[in-house]
Amino acid sequence: MKRILSGMRPTGKLHLGHLVGALNNWVKLQDEYQCFYMIADWHALMSEYEDPKLMKESCYEMVRDFVASGLDPGRSVIFVQSHVPEHLELAMIFSDITPLAWVERVPTYKEQLREIKGRDLTTYGFLGYPILQAADIAVYKADAVPVGVDQVPHLELTREIIRRFNGLYKRDIFPEPAAILTKTPKLLGLDNRKMSKSYANFIALSDTPEVIKKKVNVMITDAERIRLQDKGHPAVCNVFSYFSTFTKPDNVSKVKDWCEGALRGCTECKKGLAEILIENLDPIRTRRDKMPDSEVEGIIAEGAKRARKAAGETMAEVKKLINLMP
Amino acid sequence: MKRILSGMRPTGKLHLGHLVGALNNWVKLQDEYQCFYMIADWHALMSEYEDPKLMKESCYEMVRDFVASGLDPGRSVIFVQSHVPEHLELAMIFSDITPLAWVERVPTYKEQLREIKGRDLTTYGFLGYPILQAADIAVYKADAVPVGVDQVPHLELTREIIRRFNGLYKRDIFPEPAAILTKTPKLLGLDNRKMSKSYANFIALSDTPEVIKKKVNVMITDAERIRLQDKGHPAVCNVFSYFSTFTKPDNVSKVKDWCEGALRGCTECKKGLAEILIENLDPIRTRRDKMPDSEVEGIIAEGAKRARKAAGETMAEVKKLINLMP
Repeated sequence: MKRILSGMRPTGKLHLGHLVGALNNWVKLQDEYQCFYMIADWHALMSEYEDPKLMKESCYEMVRDFVASGLDPGRSVIFVQSHVPEHLELAMIFSDITPLAWVERVPTYKEQLREIKGRDLTTYGFLGYPILQAADIAVYKADAVPVGVDQVPHLELTREIIRRFNGLYKRDIFPEPAAILTKTPKLLGLDNRKMSKSYANFIALSDTPEVIKKKVNVMITDAERIRLQDKGHPAVCNVFSYFSTFTKPDNVSKVKDWCEGALRGCTECKKGLAEILIENLDPIRTRRDKMPDSEVEGIIAEGAKRARKAAGETMAEVKKLINLMP
Repeated sequence: MKRILSGMRPTGKLHLGHLVGALNNWVKLQDEYQCFYMIADWHALMSEYEDPKLMKESCYEMVRDFVASGLDPGRSVIFVQSHVPEHLELAMIFSDITPLAWVERVPTYKEQLREIKGRDLTTYGFLGYPILQAADIAVYKADAVPVGVDQVPHLELTREIIRRFNGLYKRDIFPEPAAILTKTPKLLGLDNRKMSKSYANFIALSDTPEVIKKKVNVMITDAERIRLQDKGHPAVCNVFSYFSTFTKPDNVSKVKDWCEGALRGCTECKKGLAEILIENLDPIRTRRDKMPDSEVEGIIAEGAKRARKAAGETMAEVKKLINLMP
């Protein structure tokens, strides 16, 4: 069975954006691949080092969110990155063979320096994050990686580093991972900006029905529909885009007709959306709440064991090849 | 008992330069400090990555050289860096808190890029070597580090990183290590250039008497002393500087008189030096040769255990402080 590796940074609660942008896809990939799903705490520390107080809690919560969303710890390996020291060993080796210019030219690097606000990321560690990512992938000899379009340059660097390693040591130890580019719905935040923890404009997977209702109620709709009798434009309405993502096509066209015909007001529309979201998130929240701490800890311990076994096998091979002492 | 950390890169055989420049001093430091002596294979890989075939053998040989030179594995912890993953964990954390500019401005960095010939060191890994060094030291909470004058800037960076860490997380986890600046004799290579593995101008600690005789025989003496009856100038003679290092003061003045008075020729003088070196290295070589592989392996295994215990205690504290999962 082919392997994939993907991961998320434990920097707070998971929200609808993570669900439709990644998790739902990850759940499906379990049928086709041996999946390694990583809680990337070393990557999180790169940006959160000035105030890492949420790290540990976020790891626990992430396991709950993962499993409640449908990741199956029996099939997939769900693990915390820092529990598997082999990631850092391979990252060290990759660092030695990676020209400085390769990481300096990663297009997203300068972009992220600008975009991630309120964080000083001009550190040695952050410059190297694509190398750590390459090691994350290669240490499991992953054949493929589910990525968003914006992450393709990183994956290209991973492939370059792997080619360089295989070339230098004249053995095809690592496969060049392919990108699994899955089209996922684009979901904006409640305020029409990008959904983000730092904007506090998200609906968390763990939000209660009451919280969901309140949050949906403040969502921005079509700004040109001022009075109830004005006809709305679903194409520019964020609430409508949520309908498109979370309910069935026939329901979506009904909502479209109501809006374009001015048959229902935005408040009523939002109530409908809140109900649909509550219905969608209800099984996730229920599963989360039923999960005792001991279950979470068990999943983390078991994941570490399985991940270390796979990564350890790779590193034994790598160390032998480059003459490090076992 | 205060702790020190020092290390050497396993990139080939140890020679007289290592003995008088470091090892003899390390032996003495054992009486005053709890010593951690590291075989720095991750550092070696930074420069040897294109051809690491000697790495493993060099690690074994280094243990022999260490112990034969007087390092006591019962008191000191002799260990291989890559056996202690905590070095890389702390290096990862230090990388995240270290501004890129700090490593770019280390004075020896650009110097080494120029000086180390035949190696492509413009890599991400090599830029970060002072951060790994900082982690090497801090992971044992070393109070002091025996260094040469040229390494003082690195140690200053270590101290800066430690101050930043202690400051960011508001706990004095790490002591700021002091430099132990010991004056050691400066020994040139057989050809009057810097003694170096890559110039093949050294006398190895493992060289046999025959090899030593041959090597001393090609040493360059005072170039202005052409005929036997010419008076020599010990101050510019490399052979004389070896006498000064390896024999007693009264013997040294005898040699000086012979040379300045043209009482003995260079060939005779070299014979005398070879005897002295053979005498000096004899106990080391004998001890080396008597050491079965099993003893070397035992020292390495025991060193890894003790080093991991100390480093593990530090990292447990660090992980708790920055909220990484244990």
